[in-house]
Amino acid sequence: MAGEPEERREKRFSRRRLLGAAGIASAGAVVGGALGATRGPGSSSDDSGASAVLASAALSFYGVHQAGIATPAQDRMVFAAFDVTASNAGELREMLDRWTVASAAMAAGRQVADTEAEPLAPPEDTGEAVGLPAAQLTVTVGFGPSLFDSRFGLSSRRPAKLVELPHFAGDQLDPQRSGGDICIQACANDPQVAFHAVRNLARLGRGTAALRWLQLGFGRTSSTSTSQGTPRNLFGFKDGTNNIKAEDTAAMRDFVWVGTDSDQAWMAGGSYLVARRINMHIETWDRDSLRDQEDVFGRVKLTGAPLGMGHEFDTVDLAAGNPDGTMVVPANAHIRLAAAASNGGARILRRGYSFTDGISEVTGDLEAGLFFICYQNDPERQFIALQKQLAANDALNEYIVHTGSGIFACPGGIAEGRSWSSPLFD
Amino acid sequence: MAGEPEERREKRFSRRRLLGAAGIASAGAVVGGALGATRGPGSSSDDSGASAVLASAALSFYGVHQAGIATPAQDRMVFAAFDVTASNAGELREMLDRWTVASAAMAAGRQVADTEAEPLAPPEDTGEAVGLPAAQLTVTVGFGPSLFDSRFGLSSRRPAKLVELPHFAGDQLDPQRSGGDICIQACANDPQVAFHAVRNLARLGRGTAALRWLQLGFGRTSSTSTSQGTPRNLFGFKDGTNNIKAEDTAAMRDFVWVGTDSDQAWMAGGSYLVARRINMHIETWDRDSLRDQEDVFGRVKLTGAPLGMGHEFDTVDLAAGNPDGTMVVPANAHIRLAAAASNGGARILRRGYSFTDGISEVTGDLEAGLFFICYQNDPERQFIALQKQLAANDALNEYIVHTGSGIFACPGGIAEGRSWSSPLFD
Repeated sequence: MAGEPEERREKRFSRRRLLGAAGIASAGAVVGGALGATRGPGSSSDDSGASAVLASAALSFYGVHQAGIATPAQDRMVFAAFDVTASNAGELREMLDRWTVASAAMAAGRQVADTEAEPLAPPEDTGEAVGLPAAQLTVTVGFGPSLFDSRFGLSSRRPAKLVELPHFAGDQLDPQRSGGDICIQACANDPQVAFHAVRNLARLGRGTAALRWLQLGFGRTSSTSTSQGTPRNLFGFKDGTNNIKAEDTAAMRDFVWVGTDSDQAWMAGGSYLVARRINMHIETWDRDSLRDQEDVFGRVKLTGAPLGMGHEFDTVDLAAGNPDGTMVVPANAHIRLAAAASNGGARILRRGYSFTDGISEVTGDLEAGLFFICYQNDPERQFIALQKQLAANDALNEYIVHTGSGIFACPGGIAEGRSWSSPLFD
Repeated sequence: MAGEPEERREKRFSRRRLLGAAGIASAGAVVGGALGATRGPGSSSDDSGASAVLASAALSFYGVHQAGIATPAQDRMVFAAFDVTASNAGELREMLDRWTVASAAMAAGRQVADTEAEPLAPPEDTGEAVGLPAAQLTVTVGFGPSLFDSRFGLSSRRPAKLVELPHFAGDQLDPQRSGGDICIQACANDPQVAFHAVRNLARLGRGTAALRWLQLGFGRTSSTSTSQGTPRNLFGFKDGTNNIKAEDTAAMRDFVWVGTDSDQAWMAGGSYLVARRINMHIETWDRDSLRDQEDVFGRVKLTGAPLGMGHEFDTVDLAAGNPDGTMVVPANAHIRLAAAASNGGARILRRGYSFTDGISEVTGDLEAGLFFICYQNDPERQFIALQKQLAANDALNEYIVHTGSGIFACPGGIAEGRSWSSPLFD
């Protein structure tokens, strides 16, 4: 198509011009941690104008910590795990450099590359997010244990605490939904924005990293800020009432952020991400009585109050007994086994999402559940210890099965001009 | 668990009380067709407080037409097709009665059943939408050709225009994603609300209808109202610029709504729904040059303007030629072949959504695309004629493949107190 008509050339907007015209959020519109003011713990959705504006804003990509961990959980998620297929470390490094620049641009509401359109080349950005706001996009990277094998000379960079997860009782893990050398957690309040981010990173990684698995999530299943109401999971229960909140800086320091005492300096300010795809047998659950459902969780379904208490945020009394000798919160209730008091004080920051992936070809049931994500600074002492206890005793096990799994070391945040390759190669 | 402690019983909120406390939208908050004021054609997202309030409001379930057709397209969709497994017509009729009551309640932001909780029985509502606003939920029902076979004595009720779709060139339809006796299109601005609706209908239908397939959609791919900006599909192009808009009552009458002249009186005010799951080979597309992409669609990528024109809503000049003798809009460009002028004036109301369902186990590519839905009053003359032309000649065919298909007769709307069973049995 040589000889493009002059008229067409003139009418073709440059990306830069369009970006300006569309008024897409730039760095000047970045909203930091000030999301708390508009929503009280009792509200559960964006029902005010102020929160709608915040929901479309841009969050800072740079900082001491990566965005997407302490960030108040956005409403949608796309999680991707990649196998690195590069033939050498240099290719991996360059890809991480490209990913960093692109992620920062997308988080600011811009396209992957802010260059003039070149008609004879493929567009540098796939384009489906043009005109959409930043929607609080966060892009968070993590490195799996397998990345630290012999391929890229990274074995000396592997943090001691990045352990492989053991087999837990009841696990039915699908290898095609587990593991991976690198993970990307993209969260936003618009699913097209989150999908656009993962798709464009996958594209920038072509030849260097191949998508291994991908999971979409909707309806965050935990609140991670005191500004957010507690959402409900697909069993209809409020989930994450006692989650660590980002405002609790002591708990974030004690349980989430890796300190400067790590064997790997690059993990300072980082955290370890555990992902578990948990299928929920919702058809079976829906046939269970309300009382049994409440005994399974240890909470009143509608209010979210611990059994024996009147309000969601009342402190549970795990010692309380009924006149007939039974416990008010049954011995195998989920909240009893998951409570910090039952786990040597250990807590985790949960940041999961509900999912549904159509209908199981095997059973004909809805393929739906919880894509569980948690952050912690010591997986062995936190998630692994907790999950061992839950896998052995939790009354919920009758209704769930873990079908996917991954663990990743998420490095600390970076300053502008730095790259995700720094933790591995600098 | 007999002998429930008095304390626990007292603390258990009734559903009715909780509904009141949560301030869930009731009929008084119903918003009709007055959604136009807050968004101009240039805006593409909920960025104003007023639109956020509207986005969470309840829409009327009852009326001359079913909601979910002319309704300005919400942001999320769950589409389900069911096989009726009932052993007799009475069971089908009763299920449709239950579905009607439940759908009306959910559209109003209420639970399936507004009854006191009964601890020893399964909850009547699965609960995950408690506390969420109505989010403009619409639940639209349609009946497939197979429903009118001999099983339920309905063969005389089959509309003549409810024809089976023919095989189109290039079709690679998966039987597990095609057909069905009944479809439910649930759309809302919150995916958990849309999922909740389909899940609860599936539950109410247990033993009478089995889920056959299910598709989640995000990011509507057409505007169906002058109040909405034109969204982008996963190829990064604005899609649906020339779609029928609900405000164009003449076009709605001529092309969408079935009139009183139908051979089946129950179709008056109804419409025929065609669904097509269209996988997009986005990895291949992303390697194509910008100019080729624009020639495939016949539009400028960033602005959405027809080739040769400056603005999205400029009228395309299909006759315009370049000095070198080629056409400005190529002969096989999508917008040329899809234009009403190329199809004897026929138009359709498109109401589709983007989807992504993880990674293809066969190719390793992203399983993503467009879940195309259109409404019309004469499928043979509209979708079928149009698709025959597109399947034979459309430049887009290099990048897409149709993998799922269904056609359904959506009856007219109902008045309060009436049921979806009326069209079939009254």
